[in-house]
Amino acid sequence: MHSFLMTLDCPDGVGLLARITDFVASQGGSFTEVNQFTDKISNWFLARFAFEMERETSLAEIRNAFVPVARELNASWSFREATKPVRTVLLVSKEDHCLADLLWRWRSGELNIEIPLVISNHTDLRSVLEKEGIPFMHIPIPQEESAKENAFRQVSDAVCEVSGELTVLCRYMQILPDWYCAEHHNRIINIHHSLLPAFAGADPYKRAYDRGVKLIGATCHYATGELDAGPIIHQEVLDVEHFHTPVDLRRIGRDCERLALARGVRLHVEDRVVVHQSRAIVFGN
Amino acid sequence: MHSFLMTLDCPDGVGLLARITDFVASQGGSFTEVNQFTDKISNWFLARFAFEMERETSLAEIRNAFVPVARELNASWSFREATKPVRTVLLVSKEDHCLADLLWRWRSGELNIEIPLVISNHTDLRSVLEKEGIPFMHIPIPQEESAKENAFRQVSDAVCEVSGELTVLCRYMQILPDWYCAEHHNRIINIHHSLLPAFAGADPYKRAYDRGVKLIGATCHYATGELDAGPIIHQEVLDVEHFHTPVDLRRIGRDCERLALARGVRLHVEDRVVVHQSRAIVFGN
Amino acid sequence: MHSFLMTLDCPDGVGLLARITDFVASQGGSFTEVNQFTDKISNWFLARFAFEMERETSLAEIRNAFVPVARELNASWSFREATKPVRTVLLVSKEDHCLADLLWRWRSGELNIEIPLVISNHTDLRSVLEKEGIPFMHIPIPQEESAKENAFRQVSDAVCEVSGELTVLCRYMQILPDWYCAEHHNRIINIHHSLLPAFAGADPYKRAYDRGVKLIGATCHYATGELDAGPIIHQEVLDVEHFHTPVDLRRIGRDCERLALARGVRLHVEDRVVVHQSRAIVFGN
Amino acid sequence: MHSFLMTLDCPDGVGLLARITDFVASQGGSFTEVNQFTDKISNWFLARFAFEMERETSLAEIRNAFVPVARELNASWSFREATKPVRTVLLVSKEDHCLADLLWRWRSGELNIEIPLVISNHTDLRSVLEKEGIPFMHIPIPQEESAKENAFRQVSDAVCEVSGELTVLCRYMQILPDWYCAEHHNRIINIHHSLLPAFAGADPYKRAYDRGVKLIGATCHYATGELDAGPIIHQEVLDVEHFHTPVDLRRIGRDCERLALARGVRLHVEDRVVVHQSRAIVFGN
Repeated sequence: MHSFLMTLDCPDGVGLLARITDFVASQGGSFTEVNQFTDKISNWFLARFAFEMERETSLAEIRNAFVPVARELNASWSFREATKPVRTVLLVSKEDHCLADLLWRWRSGELNIEIPLVISNHTDLRSVLEKEGIPFMHIPIPQEESAKENAFRQVSDAVCEVSGELTVLCRYMQILPDWYCAEHHNRIINIHHSLLPAFAGADPYKRAYDRGVKLIGATCHYATGELDAGPIIHQEVLDVEHFHTPVDLRRIGRDCERLALARGVRLHVEDRVVVHQSRAIVFGN
Repeated sequence: MHSFLMTLDCPDGVGLLARITDFVASQGGSFTEVNQFTDKISNWFLARFAFEMERETSLAEIRNAFVPVARELNASWSFREATKPVRTVLLVSKEDHCLADLLWRWRSGELNIEIPLVISNHTDLRSVLEKEGIPFMHIPIPQEESAKENAFRQVSDAVCEVSGELTVLCRYMQILPDWYCAEHHNRIINIHHSLLPAFAGADPYKRAYDRGVKLIGATCHYATGELDAGPIIHQEVLDVEHFHTPVDLRRIGRDCERLALARGVRLHVEDRVVVHQSRAIVFGN
Repeated sequence: MHSFLMTLDCPDGVGLLARITDFVASQGGSFTEVNQFTDKISNWFLARFAFEMERETSLAEIRNAFVPVARELNASWSFREATKPVRTVLLVSKEDHCLADLLWRWRSGELNIEIPLVISNHTDLRSVLEKEGIPFMHIPIPQEESAKENAFRQVSDAVCEVSGELTVLCRYMQILPDWYCAEHHNRIINIHHSLLPAFAGADPYKRAYDRGVKLIGATCHYATGELDAGPIIHQEVLDVEHFHTPVDLRRIGRDCERLALARGVRLHVEDRVVVHQSRAIVFGN
Repeated sequence: MHSFLMTLDCPDGVGLLARITDFVASQGGSFTEVNQFTDKISNWFLARFAFEMERETSLAEIRNAFVPVARELNASWSFREATKPVRTVLLVSKEDHCLADLLWRWRSGELNIEIPLVISNHTDLRSVLEKEGIPFMHIPIPQEESAKENAFRQVSDAVCEVSGELTVLCRYMQILPDWYCAEHHNRIINIHHSLLPAFAGADPYKRAYDRGVKLIGATCHYATGELDAGPIIHQEVLDVEHFHTPVDLRRIGRDCERLALARGVRLHVEDRVVVHQSRAIVFGN
């Protein structure tokens, strides 16, 4: 059995779903999970299709056959084999909790990714990755503007070199330049340690403590040119008690971050996320 | 615009979704939300379709046109107008918290039901319903077996008389006979005050207290012949602290019950629930 | 048995708890629940004491006996009979979901309050309250500044006239003047329909929808002169799915609001909240 | 500053708290967090005290001074330095998710434990522990009854040899004999992969799937002679969707298990748990 995942979005109209499902049936595909949703405000059709085929076939063959259909529908679409791991590059700084969690999930096989490379602006985590046998690249990010640009160009090149399909910022603590976010549009996942849009920016736990909130959380989102404003994929929340210090909030927050990031990466890797305007449509949360 | 809801389940195969979506397109229908899922263990196709039509049409017309398709697929299916309120009969006993909550949601228009009748084995809540202008029927349930059967026959007749499409047990505290559950199969919603299968049966809060659980909950499910064993539609959970007495658990539990019941009824009324074997498939929770 | 509740906060030091518990023991009091917490950042002692006495005694007698102790500790404190209902005035506008919920909880006896008066700037909810036998007062809030001031003076006077100990804003939709908040300091509970500080101000659900958040919530807090910035007592959160419209968010939000407000009012009424600087310390959440 | 933690439970009476807090004050101790609770059903006094002392003092000195007070109150009590790590022995089998999580928390310093030894009935995880520099002991558990007894005697001896104060079963998959649970009473923490009492015993996820539950969870509890019946310390819960297979439930369950176990161990290590009869009183959840 060969399993495929397709996502698609296009202007709405009558017969779209029939057109697509008919195509899949004509290829001998049998659906295992389908989600379709029409955004009535913008009149936009969004869908995700999981299907299986018994016959020997290639991704390229089906893709080529679908091209005219997609053109006809004026659609953006993605199409891939469900079981093929997503090549994922991790960007880290000094903190290791998100990294350690993703590594554990990758190692145990629960997350369908492969990790060809980890890049860091520091060297603290080099040994962790060497133990795992994962290539580690140290690209320092200087303060000075043009040197910084240059460094990010190196990062981008390194991601491309290893055919990275997804970049995950595991508490990378650097603001990516606009051009970088544009080049890797909806393929950079970031984790912010607050329930965005609350406490966007720096030091959210300290500010959460001062404000006396009773809940803290974390937000997994796609990085865009505007800081902490990209489409939200997933959010996690945990209770806070009066005896928790800012240090405790940081600790509780780490649990939120790990869960939200792992969940967000999984949703992306299962192609359950379709971005429409500023919102991430998540099929089958 | 006319909005319709269809649910369908049948043996799996290639081309099913194309067949159905093609039918809807041929009628001029435009999908707003579609969910399909194949249970791989039993090889079963389950789906929900929400679609809209611009042209003037009748439910009966589309229904008749679909009959041959459904026969071809060997499918169980339901089909109805999305905006038409579901005629819902409530069965109550003495406690009013679930009743009061459903009444509020009905009155405010947030739940798409109409309530042609409330039946109780007691008269305590009669005045509440008279204030709302809802017909109230008192049908006592005697202990003696054949008199009891007779009473439930009256209940069933009364539900049919008002064309009840759904019966909701709002803490009715009576066990319905097998034949009753069979006659109203998957159209009787019950609320149990525990996270089933924990604490099935009587007095769950007392037992939860004694067991020292840190979470209590409520389970909204379809009533079947076997007590507290019907397909689960929705479950809610809340924290318990050490200083909570069994009385507190009952109070906290009431919040769980109200939320779980309201959510379960909404899911049913929006036709998001398709029962397959002993499990309720809930589309778009 | 007579049950009492005491809360107290003062500068920290050695022997404070011994001093207070010794006082209670000397009066023949037996503790049922005690919570103490020292804020190490500001070096502040905060505590709540629940205790019982067998002997016939008066609140005034114990209070008078405690006055010198409190002075010695330089403490703010409250002291009252646990079973005596808190006289609670509700301020409402046109929406009734928070009102209906509090009324149900009051009527069922689960919330230890009495409601001597409901005040509204509109007349829409008059009949609801007349049915309940609760006095209703219509005090319109004009736009013009000095007339508005005057209206709020009337509201404040009406609350005092019925010896209101607590005011609950049940979606009152008016911003109380600074002097009002100061006069009723930490005795006005408000509900905001977002997870503050996210979406403070108007129309939070619309903004939450546009931002594509995956969680929405509600915040119960004390009203202060600064809008939506008062100490947070409790927050509730619920999941949002991609198919939820802004109308759905409002509906889901109402459930959050009701739960958060009921929980917040209960925590206040059980004297579990002690405000320190801008944070509400909640004992035994 | 020296920080201490004391827990205590005894028959209720007037003046108990004054007696204890007076003792602490007389030693120059200043409370940072106190929780007291009286179980009115069994008339039992339970409390936890966190306090600090400026003067140079020894644990033994204070402990000795408190002995006569405890005797006077007929109390069970514990007393220790707050910052001293709890010596924790982990028992593992083949699965590493709970182990990996506890190791990460220990390594990062967020959990106040030291791990002098890990014991397993298999050798699969030996290399993981060697990498961490933690002693690993392989004690196979034979099927035959007397050989099994003997093996558990070896386990118990090994724990005592390294002065283990706490044993954590990280998915150990073995039922400890009664005498073992009795010897290490309330000092063995286990994690069960269901919301006990639901699905006690083997294969809970498979049964949860078949039952179609909408929530799954995990329960952290003290191991007692009766399987899965010990006092519950903490429970975690996560949502389940219709498209989740039993394999998915296992994966989601692992997140529950890790969180529940880490939280339960933390609560124990902070001495926030006092067991009374069959219930675990958790102060300051």
